[in-house]
Amino acid sequence: MKKQLNNNHYYAVILAGGSGTRLWPISREMYPKQLLALTGNKTLIQETFSRTESIVPKENIYIVTNKQFTTDILLQLKSYGFTREQLIIEPAQKNTAPAISLAVDVIQKKDRGALILVSPADHLITDTVAFKKSIITAFARAGEGKLITLGIAPDSSSPEYGYIKPASAIGKQVSVPVECFVEKPPQEIAEVYVKDGYLWNAGIFIWSAKTFNKEIKKYLPEVVHAISLRETNNEKFIEHFSVLSPVSIDVGLLERSKAVEVIKVKFGWRDIGSWKSLYELLGKDSRGNVLNEHALIIDCENSLVYGSEKRATVAIGVSGIVVVDTEDAVLIVHKDETHKIKNAFAVLKERNKMQYKEHKTVVRPWGSYTVLEEGLGYKVKKIMVNPHERLSLQLHHQRSEHWVVIQGVAKATVGESTLLYEINQTVDIPTETIHRLENPTNEVLEVIEVQNGAYLGEDDIVRFDDVYERNI
Amino acid sequence: MKKQLNNNHYYAVILAGGSGTRLWPISREMYPKQLLALTGNKTLIQETFSRTESIVPKENIYIVTNKQFTTDILLQLKSYGFTREQLIIEPAQKNTAPAISLAVDVIQKKDRGALILVSPADHLITDTVAFKKSIITAFARAGEGKLITLGIAPDSSSPEYGYIKPASAIGKQVSVPVECFVEKPPQEIAEVYVKDGYLWNAGIFIWSAKTFNKEIKKYLPEVVHAISLRETNNEKFIEHFSVLSPVSIDVGLLERSKAVEVIKVKFGWRDIGSWKSLYELLGKDSRGNVLNEHALIIDCENSLVYGSEKRATVAIGVSGIVVVDTEDAVLIVHKDETHKIKNAFAVLKERNKMQYKEHKTVVRPWGSYTVLEEGLGYKVKKIMVNPHERLSLQLHHQRSEHWVVIQGVAKATVGESTLLYEINQTVDIPTETIHRLENPTNEVLEVIEVQNGAYLGEDDIVRFDDVYERNI
Repeated sequence: MKKQLNNNHYYAVILAGGSGTRLWPISREMYPKQLLALTGNKTLIQETFSRTESIVPKENIYIVTNKQFTTDILLQLKSYGFTREQLIIEPAQKNTAPAISLAVDVIQKKDRGALILVSPADHLITDTVAFKKSIITAFARAGEGKLITLGIAPDSSSPEYGYIKPASAIGKQVSVPVECFVEKPPQEIAEVYVKDGYLWNAGIFIWSAKTFNKEIKKYLPEVVHAISLRETNNEKFIEHFSVLSPVSIDVGLLERSKAVEVIKVKFGWRDIGSWKSLYELLGKDSRGNVLNEHALIIDCENSLVYGSEKRATVAIGVSGIVVVDTEDAVLIVHKDETHKIKNAFAVLKERNKMQYKEHKTVVRPWGSYTVLEEGLGYKVKKIMVNPHERLSLQLHHQRSEHWVVIQGVAKATVGESTLLYEINQTVDIPTETIHRLENPTNEVLEVIEVQNGAYLGEDDIVRFDDVYERNI
Repeated sequence: MKKQLNNNHYYAVILAGGSGTRLWPISREMYPKQLLALTGNKTLIQETFSRTESIVPKENIYIVTNKQFTTDILLQLKSYGFTREQLIIEPAQKNTAPAISLAVDVIQKKDRGALILVSPADHLITDTVAFKKSIITAFARAGEGKLITLGIAPDSSSPEYGYIKPASAIGKQVSVPVECFVEKPPQEIAEVYVKDGYLWNAGIFIWSAKTFNKEIKKYLPEVVHAISLRETNNEKFIEHFSVLSPVSIDVGLLERSKAVEVIKVKFGWRDIGSWKSLYELLGKDSRGNVLNEHALIIDCENSLVYGSEKRATVAIGVSGIVVVDTEDAVLIVHKDETHKIKNAFAVLKERNKMQYKEHKTVVRPWGSYTVLEEGLGYKVKKIMVNPHERLSLQLHHQRSEHWVVIQGVAKATVGESTLLYEINQTVDIPTETIHRLENPTNEVLEVIEVQNGAYLGEDDIVRFDDVYERNI
């Protein structure tokens, strides 16, 4: 008979606040790595949630993120039964120590005996059985008053990861104290580290709320103080949290606490930190190329070429190059130079080229929209509304809108009138007129929207009623 | 006092039928090299016309091309005073010998004493003063019963050009007979050719109608016969022309006639046959890169990077690569592999990816349109109408259309009604309804058009009245 796991006190915190420059142009500031499907059909946060759910009761899983990612995270995890109540919004981005402290505080208010798994949302783990076994071992050790960190047994001397130096040889012990944490080393140093038994720092931690609280109070009292204000005075909490110095959990707590121990593990872990590491991970053709179905290549080798569906993406005679083409941006980078993408990203941001921030198609709770064209005084969008979803009841001060139904049936409210519109029918919405677009059917609704007006920013919107509560 | 040139009998034939695969994705099947501005503001055919006009009376310049390029050629040369009557349309593409013979026949019907300059539309010539001098010398020699070809004094041993071998050392003679014409040689052979005094074959010829007719009758009587039918029986002419074997003027006439002589010239001639040769021609930054204003590069060298205006085009750490990004296609090719572009072009054509054929923005006599999006049952276009231009009076059997004015004022006819529409006003055109869009103002008119229908091909159009005579 299979032993039933008593996991009532198991909790998890998934850290999903990271922004995505390194996999640009697939990742964008508003659409980071955790929201992408890089190696299969599921996105990394979906993979992480599934994996965690095999150990921790679904309702005990919390996700810490910042406000701008909430819509996408909720959408991606909707079918997994994840709810808005399990989402913890950081008042400000202050690196991992304040974020984790906030999440632990939320959990311990619910269960003072909580044992908590903390993990990033954007890592790959291929051996989920081994992962589960490691976490259960770690939960047991955490229950004995230790702050457990997982050290991955390296299968290469990668310069892309941070390393953990155990204080002693591990041998048959479950865990040993940590001597130190080291940042990403140069290649030569990484080779020495691996020979000397250092482990990869996966950023996965397991501890009890009790031990964590005891230790964090010693080393980061200002963080504990800010968070203590949360229940009594939310404004003061936000104020204090917002002026905290950013500090990672490694530097702020783990490098200082005496309670830290490392468990050596192996479960096919990878943090895809660059196009180069993604290239290395994926299946290749006979000439060493990683391709998607939209790429057309002739005589290329050792390259990654991702084409874009509606475009023609052609690569000829190149070697060791990464080409990533999307609807509105293309990146061509030598495989050994992918660390410079962040510089290009910064330039695009400085020039206010929107490709740094969002994709041309933006996902919304009700569906998505694509900006087809914009210019002085006009914008053209294709709007896709999922079955039985509706946009907010809204008005715009500065723009009028014209809809043409191209797919499905629209229920459109304009002022006092609410009517059904079929393919080829049009709706005109003057400025200052309350309106709503809704899909009352089981089929997808698609509408072309032409906006006219002197100002066409997304922020010229007054929402009166929104099923997705986006005024809160 | 400047000697007045007696040029009454000077004529020119510009060959503009070539299609453009080698500079894809800037050139397209419907938009070949001669229509592009590669090194300045003027397109190659505009440059060629200007240059020719400095020697030959404007009204004596004829352009031979095929039907699909006529709209663009007329548009590009409108401001040069070139008229539709000077355009000679090949009934079929049969290489240069039939095309030139047809043009010579048109000219000799006008002037039996004609002296004719024949030149391609897509070559670069930087020293127009030297060019003019060479052509006038050649006209004189042509008047003495010779078929003159120009041989460019090579400034490198390029494998991208064909060569002419003079029958003897040229010395102080104006022209010498030709021993043979040779196709593009491998690099090593080209070096020997240049040492041995071979000249580049520029494809520029000068002869009298009289000499040409005498010689062409000897060597290509079937071409002469087909063309002789033109004035008496146009149908038979087209029928005979269409079954001619394709043959170049070099192979069909010049390699066989005893009247051929070459004049050695030097006037900064180049035929831009590839992205590599364009790269070599253009100004470079300190690291050897050719860039346009839309390219963002970091640590690249010896590369050509052309970005696309509305997109983000980013190249990092690459060397010796050509990157050409456009609205709907991107090419990444090693500089030494540009000859393989034609293979990619063929694949796109086979897959019916429209990027081989047309640009996303298509130029029309009245302005232009851009397909912003298309899918099952719908198409979205941005239509730009130049001041005081009008589209044809038309109807569609299978699609309805919706217009939203985004710029300027539209005069729209729908059925019996003709009204003016301003920005933010809309026009609905049901299927089977006669309509016309017109710009009655001095400002550009822009309209977003949404089409609905089961079939949305450009050929579902019945034209009743077209100022550009596109039904003829």
